[in-house]
Amino acid sequence: MATFPPAREAGQRKRDTLRRLETDEDAWVSSASADGAPCLVPLSFVWHGGRLLMATKSTNPTARNLQGNGACRIALGPTRDVVLLDCTAQVIASDALPDAAGEAFAEKLGWDPRGRSAWVFLAFRPQRVLAWREENELAARELMRDGVWVV
Amino acid sequence: MATFPPAREAGQRKRDTLRRLETDEDAWVSSASADGAPCLVPLSFVWHGGRLLMATKSTNPTARNLQGNGACRIALGPTRDVVLLDCTAQVIASDALPDAAGEAFAEKLGWDPRGRSAWVFLAFRPQRVLAWREENELAARELMRDGVWVV
Repeated sequence: MATFPPAREAGQRKRDTLRRLETDEDAWVSSASADGAPCLVPLSFVWHGGRLLMATKSTNPTARNLQGNGACRIALGPTRDVVLLDCTAQVIASDALPDAAGEAFAEKLGWDPRGRSAWVFLAFRPQRVLAWREENELAARELMRDGVWVV
Repeated sequence: MATFPPAREAGQRKRDTLRRLETDEDAWVSSASADGAPCLVPLSFVWHGGRLLMATKSTNPTARNLQGNGACRIALGPTRDVVLLDCTAQVIASDALPDAAGEAFAEKLGWDPRGRSAWVFLAFRPQRVLAWREENELAARELMRDGVWVV
Protein backbone atom coordinates (compact mmCIF):
# COMPACT_ATOMS: atom_id res chain seq x y z
CA MET A 1 0.00 0.00 0.00
CA ALA A 2 1.08 3.55 -0.63
CA THR A 3 2.00 5.57 2.44
CA PHE A 4 0.82 9.14 2.80
CA PRO A 5 1.57 12.01 5.16
CA PRO A 6 -0.78 12.05 8.17
CA ALA A 7 -4.27 13.42 7.42
CA ARG A 8 -4.56 17.16 8.05
CA GLU A 9 -6.97 18.19 10.77
CA ALA A 10 -10.03 20.14 9.68
CA GLY A 11 -8.77 23.59 10.64
CA GLN A 12 -5.63 23.10 8.56
CA ARG A 13 -7.67 21.97 5.56
CA LYS A 14 -9.79 25.10 5.83
CA ARG A 15 -6.71 27.33 6.04
CA ASP A 16 -5.16 25.56 3.05
CA THR A 17 -8.43 25.96 1.12
CA LEU A 18 -8.69 29.67 1.87
CA ARG A 19 -5.06 30.13 0.84
CA ARG A 20 -5.81 28.46 -2.50
CA LEU A 21 -8.83 30.72 -2.98
CA GLU A 22 -6.68 33.78 -2.28
CA THR A 23 -3.64 32.83 -4.34
CA ASP A 24 -4.41 30.25 -7.06
CA GLU A 25 -4.67 31.67 -10.56
CA ASP A 26 -7.03 29.23 -12.27
CA ALA A 27 -9.85 26.81 -11.53
CA TRP A 28 -11.54 23.98 -13.40
CA VAL A 29 -15.18 24.88 -14.00
CA SER A 30 -17.70 22.16 -14.78
CA SER A 31 -21.24 22.90 -15.88
CA ALA A 32 -23.91 21.11 -17.84
CA SER A 33 -26.56 21.92 -20.38
CA ALA A 34 -30.21 21.40 -19.50
CA ASP A 35 -30.16 18.06 -21.33
CA GLY A 36 -27.06 16.78 -19.54
CA ALA A 37 -24.10 17.60 -21.81
CA PRO A 38 -21.13 18.27 -19.53
CA CYS A 39 -18.62 21.06 -20.09
CA LEU A 40 -15.25 21.51 -18.37
CA VAL A 41 -12.86 24.43 -18.89
CA PRO A 42 -10.06 26.17 -16.99
CA LEU A 43 -10.76 29.79 -16.09
CA SER A 44 -8.81 32.37 -14.12
CA PHE A 45 -10.48 33.77 -11.02
CA VAL A 46 -10.31 36.18 -8.14
CA TRP A 47 -11.81 35.41 -4.73
CA HIS A 48 -13.77 38.49 -3.71
CA GLY A 49 -16.56 38.94 -1.18
CA GLY A 50 -17.03 35.23 -0.64
CA ARG A 51 -17.37 34.52 -4.36
CA LEU A 52 -15.11 33.25 -7.11
CA LEU A 53 -15.28 35.79 -9.90
CA MET A 54 -14.42 34.84 -13.49
CA ALA A 55 -15.13 36.11 -17.02
CA THR A 56 -15.89 34.36 -20.27
CA LYS A 57 -17.48 35.14 -23.60
CA SER A 58 -21.26 35.10 -23.40
CA THR A 59 -21.46 32.65 -26.30
CA ASN A 60 -19.25 30.02 -24.61
CA PRO A 61 -20.95 26.83 -23.38
CA THR A 62 -20.05 27.62 -19.76
CA ALA A 63 -21.92 30.94 -19.84
CA ARG A 64 -24.87 29.41 -21.67
CA ASN A 65 -25.08 26.48 -19.25
CA LEU A 66 -24.97 28.73 -16.19
CA GLN A 67 -27.62 31.04 -17.63
CA GLY A 68 -29.76 27.92 -17.60
CA ASN A 69 -29.55 26.23 -14.22
CA GLY A 70 -26.65 27.92 -12.40
CA ALA A 71 -25.34 24.61 -11.02
CA CYS A 72 -21.59 24.26 -11.06
CA ARG A 73 -18.75 22.29 -9.53
CA ILE A 74 -15.36 23.98 -9.40
CA ALA A 75 -12.03 22.29 -8.68
CA LEU A 76 -8.86 23.94 -7.41
CA GLY A 77 -5.44 22.42 -7.09
CA PRO A 78 -3.85 19.34 -8.61
CA THR A 79 -5.55 15.94 -8.48
CA ARG A 80 -3.66 14.96 -5.29
CA ASP A 81 -4.47 18.17 -3.41
CA VAL A 82 -8.08 18.67 -4.32
CA VAL A 83 -10.54 21.38 -3.38
CA LEU A 84 -14.04 20.81 -4.81
CA LEU A 85 -16.65 23.54 -4.54
CA ASP A 86 -20.30 23.00 -5.40
CA CYS A 87 -21.50 26.48 -6.21
CA THR A 88 -24.47 28.50 -7.26
CA ALA A 89 -23.57 30.70 -10.20
CA GLN A 90 -24.70 34.08 -11.36
CA VAL A 91 -24.05 35.42 -14.87
CA ILE A 92 -23.47 39.19 -14.79
CA ALA A 93 -23.38 41.52 -17.81
CA SER A 94 -19.99 43.12 -18.36
CA ASP A 95 -21.34 46.56 -17.40
CA ALA A 96 -23.23 45.38 -14.31
CA LEU A 97 -20.49 44.31 -11.91
CA PRO A 98 -20.07 46.35 -8.70
CA ASP A 99 -16.96 48.57 -8.83
CA ALA A 100 -15.05 46.86 -6.01
CA ALA A 101 -15.47 43.47 -7.64
CA GLY A 102 -14.46 44.78 -11.05
CA GLU A 103 -11.34 46.38 -9.61
CA ALA A 104 -10.38 43.24 -7.72
CA PHE A 105 -10.74 41.26 -10.95
CA ALA A 106 -8.70 43.69 -13.06
CA GLU A 107 -5.95 43.93 -10.46
CA LYS A 108 -5.43 40.19 -10.03
CA LEU A 109 -6.00 39.03 -13.61
CA GLY A 110 -4.24 41.90 -15.36
CA TRP A 111 -7.05 42.75 -17.74
CA ASP A 112 -10.49 44.29 -17.49
CA PRO A 113 -13.55 42.95 -19.34
CA ARG A 114 -15.85 45.63 -17.90
CA GLY A 115 -17.94 47.18 -20.62
CA ARG A 116 -16.91 44.66 -23.29
CA SER A 117 -20.27 43.49 -24.51
CA ALA A 118 -19.07 40.12 -25.80
CA TRP A 119 -18.03 39.15 -22.25
CA VAL A 120 -19.89 38.27 -19.08
CA PHE A 121 -18.74 37.86 -15.51
CA LEU A 122 -19.46 34.65 -13.64
CA ALA A 123 -19.85 34.84 -9.86
CA PHE A 124 -19.77 31.57 -7.94
CA ARG A 125 -20.83 31.27 -4.32
CA PRO A 126 -19.72 27.99 -2.69
CA GLN A 127 -22.45 25.97 -1.05
CA ARG A 128 -20.44 22.83 -0.32
CA VAL A 129 -16.66 22.51 -0.08
CA LEU A 130 -14.63 19.29 -0.01
CA ALA A 131 -10.85 19.12 0.41
CA TRP A 132 -8.51 16.14 0.44
CA ARG A 133 -5.09 15.01 -0.67
CA GLU A 134 -4.85 11.24 -0.51
CA GLU A 135 -7.13 8.38 0.50
CA ASN A 136 -6.45 8.92 4.19
CA GLU A 137 -8.11 12.33 3.92
CA LEU A 138 -11.35 11.17 2.28
CA ALA A 139 -12.98 11.01 5.70
CA ALA A 140 -13.81 14.46 7.07
CA ARG A 141 -13.34 16.05 3.64
CA GLU A 142 -16.47 18.21 3.93
CA LEU A 143 -15.56 21.71 5.09
CA MET A 144 -18.71 23.63 4.09
CA ARG A 145 -22.32 22.53 3.91
CA ASP A 146 -25.36 24.56 2.77
CA GLY A 147 -23.13 27.61 2.33
CA VAL A 148 -21.77 27.52 5.91
CA TRP A 149 -18.28 26.47 6.99
CA VAL A 150 -18.64 23.47 9.30
CA VAL A 151 -15.03 23.91 10.46
CA MET B 1 0.79 41.74 -22.01
CA ALA B 2 2.18 38.46 -20.76
CA THR B 3 4.75 36.81 -22.97
CA PHE B 4 4.62 33.10 -23.66
CA PRO B 5 6.91 30.56 -25.27
CA PRO B 6 6.24 30.18 -29.02
CA ALA B 7 3.15 28.11 -29.86
CA ARG B 8 3.92 24.43 -30.37
CA GLU B 9 3.25 23.06 -33.81
CA ALA B 10 0.49 20.49 -34.13
CA GLY B 11 2.71 17.40 -34.26
CA GLN B 12 4.40 18.42 -31.02
CA ARG B 13 1.05 18.96 -29.32
CA LYS B 14 -0.05 15.50 -30.35
CA ARG B 15 3.18 13.93 -29.06
CA ASP B 16 2.83 15.83 -25.77
CA THR B 17 -0.79 14.70 -25.50
CA LEU B 18 0.06 11.05 -26.11
CA ARG B 19 2.84 11.28 -23.53
CA ARG B 20 0.34 12.60 -20.96
CA LEU B 21 -2.03 9.75 -21.80
CA GLU B 22 0.78 7.23 -21.31
CA THR B 23 2.30 8.69 -18.15
CA ASP B 24 -0.12 10.91 -16.19
CA GLU B 25 -1.64 9.30 -13.11
CA ASP B 26 -4.95 11.13 -12.77
CA ALA B 27 -7.56 12.97 -14.82
CA TRP B 28 -10.44 15.31 -14.06
CA VAL B 29 -13.71 13.66 -15.11
CA SER B 30 -16.80 15.78 -15.67
CA SER B 31 -20.21 14.29 -16.24
CA ALA B 32 -23.79 15.40 -15.78
CA SER B 33 -27.07 13.94 -14.66
CA ALA B 34 -29.96 13.76 -17.11
CA ASP B 35 -31.41 16.94 -15.62
CA GLY B 36 -28.17 18.92 -15.89
CA ALA B 37 -26.44 18.60 -12.50
CA PRO B 38 -22.69 18.65 -13.18
CA CYS B 39 -20.19 16.42 -11.42
CA LEU B 40 -16.40 16.73 -11.41
CA VAL B 41 -13.97 14.33 -9.73
CA PRO B 42 -10.33 13.29 -10.08
CA LEU B 43 -9.81 9.65 -11.02
CA SER B 44 -6.70 7.62 -11.78
CA PHE B 45 -6.48 6.06 -15.22
CA VAL B 46 -4.55 3.87 -17.60
CA TRP B 47 -4.47 4.49 -21.35
CA HIS B 48 -5.09 1.12 -22.98
CA GLY B 49 -6.29 0.25 -26.47
CA GLY B 50 -7.21 3.80 -27.34
CA ARG B 51 -9.33 4.26 -24.22
CA LEU B 52 -8.85 5.82 -20.82
CA LEU B 53 -9.74 3.16 -18.28
CA MET B 54 -10.80 4.09 -14.73
CA ALA B 55 -12.74 2.54 -11.86
CA THR B 56 -15.22 3.95 -9.37
CA LYS B 57 -17.94 2.68 -7.08
CA SER B 58 -21.15 1.97 -8.95
CA THR B 59 -23.11 4.20 -6.57
CA ASN B 60 -20.97 7.29 -7.22
CA PRO B 61 -22.53 10.13 -9.24
CA THR B 62 -19.97 9.72 -12.03
CA ALA B 63 -20.96 6.09 -12.63
CA ARG B 64 -24.66 6.89 -12.41
CA ASN B 65 -24.34 9.84 -14.79
CA LEU B 66 -22.41 7.81 -17.36
CA GLN B 67 -24.90 4.94 -17.16
CA GLY B 68 -27.38 7.57 -18.32
CA ASN B 69 -26.03 9.42 -21.31
CA GLY B 70 -22.33 8.45 -21.54
CA ALA B 71 -21.25 12.01 -22.35
CA CYS B 72 -18.08 13.12 -20.64
CA ARG B 73 -15.32 15.70 -20.83
CA ILE B 74 -11.97 14.73 -19.34
CA ALA B 75 -9.09 17.09 -18.56
CA LEU B 76 -5.42 16.17 -18.19
CA GLY B 77 -2.60 18.37 -17.01
CA PRO B 78 -2.53 21.63 -15.08
CA THR B 79 -4.64 24.62 -16.14
CA ARG B 80 -1.76 26.10 -18.18
CA ASP B 81 -0.97 22.90 -20.07
CA VAL B 82 -4.42 21.63 -20.86
CA VAL B 83 -5.59 18.52 -22.67
CA LEU B 84 -9.38 18.32 -22.97
CA LEU B 85 -10.99 15.14 -24.27
CA ASP B 86 -14.66 14.89 -25.17
CA CYS B 87 -15.37 11.19 -24.83
CA THR B 88 -18.02 8.58 -25.11
CA ALA B 89 -18.11 6.47 -21.97
CA GLN B 90 -18.94 2.86 -21.30
CA VAL B 91 -19.67 1.51 -17.80
CA ILE B 92 -18.38 -2.06 -17.44
CA ALA B 93 -19.18 -4.46 -14.60
CA SER B 94 -16.16 -5.37 -12.50
CA ASP B 95 -16.21 -8.96 -13.79
CA ALA B 96 -16.70 -8.04 -17.47
CA LEU B 97 -13.46 -6.31 -18.42
CA PRO B 98 -11.23 -8.07 -21.00
CA ASP B 99 -8.15 -9.61 -19.37
CA ALA B 100 -5.57 -7.44 -21.11
CA ALA B 101 -7.33 -4.26 -20.01
CA GLY B 102 -7.73 -5.50 -16.44
CA GLU B 103 -4.05 -6.39 -16.25
CA ALA B 104 -2.98 -3.01 -17.66
CA PHE B 105 -5.17 -1.32 -15.04
CA ALA B 106 -3.84 -3.38 -12.12
CA GLU B 107 -0.24 -2.94 -13.19
CA LYS B 108 -0.34 0.83 -13.52
CA LEU B 109 -2.67 1.69 -10.66
CA GLY B 110 -1.36 -0.84 -8.17
CA TRP B 111 -4.71 -2.36 -7.26
CA ASP B 112 -7.26 -4.55 -8.97
CA PRO B 113 -11.02 -3.97 -8.75
CA ARG B 114 -11.85 -6.97 -10.94
CA GLY B 115 -14.58 -9.04 -9.40
CA ARG B 116 -15.38 -6.50 -6.65
CA SER B 117 -19.10 -6.10 -7.12
CA ALA B 118 -19.29 -2.60 -5.60
CA TRP B 119 -17.00 -1.28 -8.34
CA VAL B 120 -17.38 -0.63 -12.05
CA PHE B 121 -14.85 0.16 -14.74
CA LEU B 122 -15.28 3.27 -16.89
CA ALA B 123 -13.88 3.17 -20.41
CA PHE B 124 -13.61 6.48 -22.26
CA ARG B 125 -12.98 6.73 -25.97
CA PRO B 126 -11.93 10.25 -27.08
CA GLN B 127 -13.97 11.77 -29.87
CA ARG B 128 -12.53 15.27 -29.78
CA VAL B 129 -9.19 16.34 -28.29
CA LEU B 130 -8.04 19.91 -27.61
CA ALA B 131 -4.61 20.86 -26.29
CA TRP B 132 -3.15 24.25 -25.42
CA ARG B 133 -0.92 26.00 -22.94
CA GLU B 134 -1.39 29.75 -23.16
CA GLU B 135 -3.49 32.13 -25.24
CA ASN B 136 -1.12 31.91 -28.18
CA GLU B 137 -2.02 28.22 -28.52
CA LEU B 138 -5.80 28.62 -28.57
CA ALA B 139 -5.72 28.64 -32.37
CA ALA B 140 -5.13 25.16 -33.80
CA ARG B 141 -5.93 23.52 -30.44
CA GLU B 142 -8.10 20.80 -32.01
CA LEU B 143 -6.08 17.60 -32.45
CA MET B 144 -8.87 15.04 -32.89
CA ARG B 145 -12.32 15.37 -34.41
CA ASP B 146 -15.07 12.73 -34.66
CA GLY B 147 -12.71 10.18 -33.12
CA VAL B 148 -9.95 10.71 -35.69
CA TRP B 149 -6.63 12.50 -35.15
CA VAL B 150 -6.51 15.47 -37.51
CA VAL B 151 -2.76 15.80 -36.89
